[in-house]
Amino acid sequence: MIIALKTGISEETVQQLTAYLEQKNLTVHRSQGTSQTVLGLVGDTTRIDEEALRAISCVDKVLRVQEPYKKAHRAFHPDDTCIEVQGLDGYTRQIGGQYFGIIAGPCSVESEEQIIAIAKSVQKAGAHFLRGGAFKPRSSPYSFQGLGIDGLKLLIQAKQETGMPLVSELMDIQQLDSFESVDVIQIGARNMQNFTLLKEIGKCHKPILLKRGLANTITELLMAAEYIMAGGTETVLLCERGIRSFDSYTRNVLDISAVPALKKQSHLPVIVDPSHATGLSWMVPAMAKAALAAGADGIIVEVHNDPEHALCDGEQSITPTVFRTLVEKLRNYAILESRII
Amino acid sequence: MIIALKTGISEETVQQLTAYLEQKNLTVHRSQGTSQTVLGLVGDTTRIDEEALRAISCVDKVLRVQEPYKKAHRAFHPDDTCIEVQGLDGYTRQIGGQYFGIIAGPCSVESEEQIIAIAKSVQKAGAHFLRGGAFKPRSSPYSFQGLGIDGLKLLIQAKQETGMPLVSELMDIQQLDSFESVDVIQIGARNMQNFTLLKEIGKCHKPILLKRGLANTITELLMAAEYIMAGGTETVLLCERGIRSFDSYTRNVLDISAVPALKKQSHLPVIVDPSHATGLSWMVPAMAKAALAAGADGIIVEVHNDPEHALCDGEQSITPTVFRTLVEKLRNYAILESRII
Amino acid sequence: MIIALKTGISEETVQQLTAYLEQKNLTVHRSQGTSQTVLGLVGDTTRIDEEALRAISCVDKVLRVQEPYKKAHRAFHPDDTCIEVQGLDGYTRQIGGQYFGIIAGPCSVESEEQIIAIAKSVQKAGAHFLRGGAFKPRSSPYSFQGLGIDGLKLLIQAKQETGMPLVSELMDIQQLDSFESVDVIQIGARNMQNFTLLKEIGKCHKPILLKRGLANTITELLMAAEYIMAGGTETVLLCERGIRSFDSYTRNVLDISAVPALKKQSHLPVIVDPSHATGLSWMVPAMAKAALAAGADGIIVEVHNDPEHALCDGEQSITPTVFRTLVEKLRNYAILESRII
Amino acid sequence: MIIALKTGISEETVQQLTAYLEQKNLTVHRSQGTSQTVLGLVGDTTRIDEEALRAISCVDKVLRVQEPYKKAHRAFHPDDTCIEVQGLDGYTRQIGGQYFGIIAGPCSVESEEQIIAIAKSVQKAGAHFLRGGAFKPRSSPYSFQGLGIDGLKLLIQAKQETGMPLVSELMDIQQLDSFESVDVIQIGARNMQNFTLLKEIGKCHKPILLKRGLANTITELLMAAEYIMAGGTETVLLCERGIRSFDSYTRNVLDISAVPALKKQSHLPVIVDPSHATGLSWMVPAMAKAALAAGADGIIVEVHNDPEHALCDGEQSITPTVFRTLVEKLRNYAILESRII
Repeated sequence: MIIALKTGISEETVQQLTAYLEQKNLTVHRSQGTSQTVLGLVGDTTRIDEEALRAISCVDKVLRVQEPYKKAHRAFHPDDTCIEVQGLDGYTRQIGGQYFGIIAGPCSVESEEQIIAIAKSVQKAGAHFLRGGAFKPRSSPYSFQGLGIDGLKLLIQAKQETGMPLVSELMDIQQLDSFESVDVIQIGARNMQNFTLLKEIGKCHKPILLKRGLANTITELLMAAEYIMAGGTETVLLCERGIRSFDSYTRNVLDISAVPALKKQSHLPVIVDPSHATGLSWMVPAMAKAALAAGADGIIVEVHNDPEHALCDGEQSITPTVFRTLVEKLRNYAILESRII
Repeated sequence: MIIALKTGISEETVQQLTAYLEQKNLTVHRSQGTSQTVLGLVGDTTRIDEEALRAISCVDKVLRVQEPYKKAHRAFHPDDTCIEVQGLDGYTRQIGGQYFGIIAGPCSVESEEQIIAIAKSVQKAGAHFLRGGAFKPRSSPYSFQGLGIDGLKLLIQAKQETGMPLVSELMDIQQLDSFESVDVIQIGARNMQNFTLLKEIGKCHKPILLKRGLANTITELLMAAEYIMAGGTETVLLCERGIRSFDSYTRNVLDISAVPALKKQSHLPVIVDPSHATGLSWMVPAMAKAALAAGADGIIVEVHNDPEHALCDGEQSITPTVFRTLVEKLRNYAILESRII
Repeated sequence: MIIALKTGISEETVQQLTAYLEQKNLTVHRSQGTSQTVLGLVGDTTRIDEEALRAISCVDKVLRVQEPYKKAHRAFHPDDTCIEVQGLDGYTRQIGGQYFGIIAGPCSVESEEQIIAIAKSVQKAGAHFLRGGAFKPRSSPYSFQGLGIDGLKLLIQAKQETGMPLVSELMDIQQLDSFESVDVIQIGARNMQNFTLLKEIGKCHKPILLKRGLANTITELLMAAEYIMAGGTETVLLCERGIRSFDSYTRNVLDISAVPALKKQSHLPVIVDPSHATGLSWMVPAMAKAALAAGADGIIVEVHNDPEHALCDGEQSITPTVFRTLVEKLRNYAILESRII
Repeated sequence: MIIALKTGISEETVQQLTAYLEQKNLTVHRSQGTSQTVLGLVGDTTRIDEEALRAISCVDKVLRVQEPYKKAHRAFHPDDTCIEVQGLDGYTRQIGGQYFGIIAGPCSVESEEQIIAIAKSVQKAGAHFLRGGAFKPRSSPYSFQGLGIDGLKLLIQAKQETGMPLVSELMDIQQLDSFESVDVIQIGARNMQNFTLLKEIGKCHKPILLKRGLANTITELLMAAEYIMAGGTETVLLCERGIRSFDSYTRNVLDISAVPALKKQSHLPVIVDPSHATGLSWMVPAMAKAALAAGADGIIVEVHNDPEHALCDGEQSITPTVFRTLVEKLRNYAILESRII
């Protein structure tokens, strides 16, 4: 961390600041220009609060050189982290490293018939995980909020019939017991900075699928992962799902460059959600292919057997037929990138 | 709500869609152009999901005419809602209607000495409510997270010594019991769409200070208020605290036009947080005056007796001296707008 | 176009508005609800100003059903437009339709040695067009502004030595005569809404490479193309080059979904500039592949033989070696999408 | 400027970089940490290109300490710059310093009757300058583009009848001769980074009203002013007119904190355009008062005698009656801030 002091600061003030910083177990290197003093801090600066430094009246600018996250940082764990989950069918699914994982299923679980049918069709097409929402974060209190516990039961039934591991969103730590049979717990975009939830979920030692918030930076996403990892969990699946912009053509803007950015900064696997990012089913295949080409470790896609009558987010769901064609295409792309699907 | 269908849709399809909409207790008015059919929906459309309509393949565009919130809507309650809280000193503080309320105090409670000193000085200067953070949402798990329960106890001690009502942030519904002596419960920007928390807090029947999320629209803020009000709470204090933008000169961009926008759409009182919006203490007085001029019903300001050594957010805190001068200035402004401070 | 009137509007007012709209050669279909009147407008609404309609006091909301552009619209020209340019070597280069075009070269022309060396190396690697900046839009008046006319002369020399067609940016219509030997004229992002320039350049009947502005919507980009096409030019190459966001990890955010969006709305070819979009050379290959996967018709890439000593934008330039490997990779991708490189 | 090098850089490389920087007339102060070398640059760094530094492979991060503008910087000219223009009536109008200036008039000049009537009414109400658009930047080539030269003639007629100085937008430097009688030349938001135009207009030695671009930073606006000032013009009037955001309630977001930010960084006067910022006439008075409260040196407001039938932007124009009431209110506000209207 580098601190540029304001011009005309007295020697006494510089020494006071230096003493204050040394108290925090940092070594301070001083560079004295003709009009300006610059301090370089060496040591563990992840615990140093940039804002607090900026508030000190003799400080002009602060530049963080080291990133503020540790466990999520690639320097901490140079090899790619790979998430491995065994299904009830005995097969292990992997996301990360060489493995490109495909998570598919409906936005919401609606009925036994629906979830079983979709589960079977996405499995046949090549999906590795079944996704389905039982608890749904909806912007209106009057919208359908998901089937809740009943929805989870239907998901578990689909897991038993197909052997596929489950991915489902948890909105409240008090729901945790009900998620015992859920293999990967999803934390939604709107909860990405629900720090209480992040701390608690980090203690459950299950793989966590963490969605990027609507207007959160790469660094903030990695800090949210750091919260989870600080609780003991080592496997966080980072998910780019579109950010807010000024254009309303698509629901959000898929930040495709977040994929190489996250892969460079972190060892954690990175997946893309083309369904929520665009909100438009006809764009999903193009965005899924772009994700693989950009280096993503997987996708999470909404598939619905009857998108027109889906209880939520139908506009962004593709049909099983479109999904099957997409997976075939992705297999060809995977060969070019030496990835295994 | 108006639905424009795609061109070349068959009569049968139009009738199917009409029947589907009528099932939802809506009256459908049809307008037949030469090439395009338009359906106008009359009835309670707050429960209608626009996304679901857009997913229907014969639908081209959907236009919502009625807002999706009801209890927060000014049409539901044409008069301004005024929040009234009685202090231990017997005096009632009001925010809304004619009353311009001032909430002041440190970002974080740090010590008995600190909170008592600040409480006394802001009270003397004219603040109506004391704010102070005991539980702090921090982007890093390694940053100071607040004194927690001990911080709440110190706040309550300050309340007893000064008589001022308290405002403090709750991050988890399980903390609710500890907030019994807190008069106004704050829901932070990062929890604005933590729908589980909104639902639960709505049942506590206390005034709720709801901060706008970093990248949430006016409508989304009012929908979050609607979640709280759906639980039974009638008094939600809406707070504009800056939105994310491309410029990093200020921490966020204070969306000053959100004040008249919210006042037009809703009967709820609207306050402004110039400290978090800008992150720069020297801007706070200018922004506080602008808030009053724009029609806000109050401000929430960070005041710290020693901003340089504050444990968090010192850069944005003003000193008690600056605060006193600001309140005097605001009193003059209030006269011009026939507001009572 | 659909106009929803406010509630409680008198019959007389509705008739006045209807008469006003019919004067503009529109047919007005009226739908009368119990409390609200909706007017549907049929005819050529591209000349209708939405803002003007919203200003009328009886109007509540306006919904545009038809897009405001015509010549750029796919409905106007259902087949893909393909840009064809013959080089001095007798070969024709194509972008659009089946053809994926590659434009490569340095950000700025710096010297004869530099531009000739880069031109030869990118040609050998498979580039179809040589790009190079002679007039550079720089945010500081004190930064290097390009070699100007001398830079154009060096570009033309490179064209003569290699036979490759040229792409270069024009900042002022008074420079047009000097661009006679430039095959494709680029209009930069900062001039995307310089309407005077768009009108004038549209009369030159050369292919125009139009870059999307930093914060312009899909519709605004197509309206800018419409300005050019209204002048008589039929071949506009649309270029996605990143939009502004709240995150500074990359210089801009590459809006990859703009590719399928523009292809759906328009018949014009769409290319991607991964160099300016990200500002980071190590991301360029991943983003170029994602562009092809998303359906783009080409890329424009900065290549520099000595990025560390480039006079501008070195950080985003790749070396000829990296470029050669990228083109080989893109050839494999192109096969999967039945594109010709 | 401070340069943090990557870890593990050889002594030879550090010395090469140091030599390269010293060639640019900078003094280099080196700070050697255990693992990292930091270089502090002293001298005129406005001509140094940050991007070029970042492209050098041994460089990790670059921190600019001095701002990249000089003539626009407050350090260059500590006192407020005040723009003074004498009207044909012999009176001098001032904006800046103690003076709060009011510029009012229609978006577009439409007819002699219209412009004369509005000019007289805004003058009577207290406006200091008459604004009116003759050349209009419109997003559609099919929209009304302004009356052009005829519009300028009508403006000049209004100037002769009222004595008020004129403000009007120039879109192309070739129009300059026609602007001889225009007292303050406006450069629109979409041309803020039309660097060719900025350079040329800087030579005309008239006061320039420079509007902030839709997604341009505080620094970029000041760099655009620097372009104009580099040409010899000393009086640039900076105008905040709203920035792009994710919310469509208002057309743009009025960045009210840009006012104190610009005033701190620069000696140039800063005005606010509440009409374009919000696009909603009913918000204009609140935003105009907020501008004064925030420290602005003036406002530019659209006033139209018949907003419903205005040829452009009627929705954002206030009537002469509303304008008169607003000016009276602003006079009261001005007293509180010791400003002269």
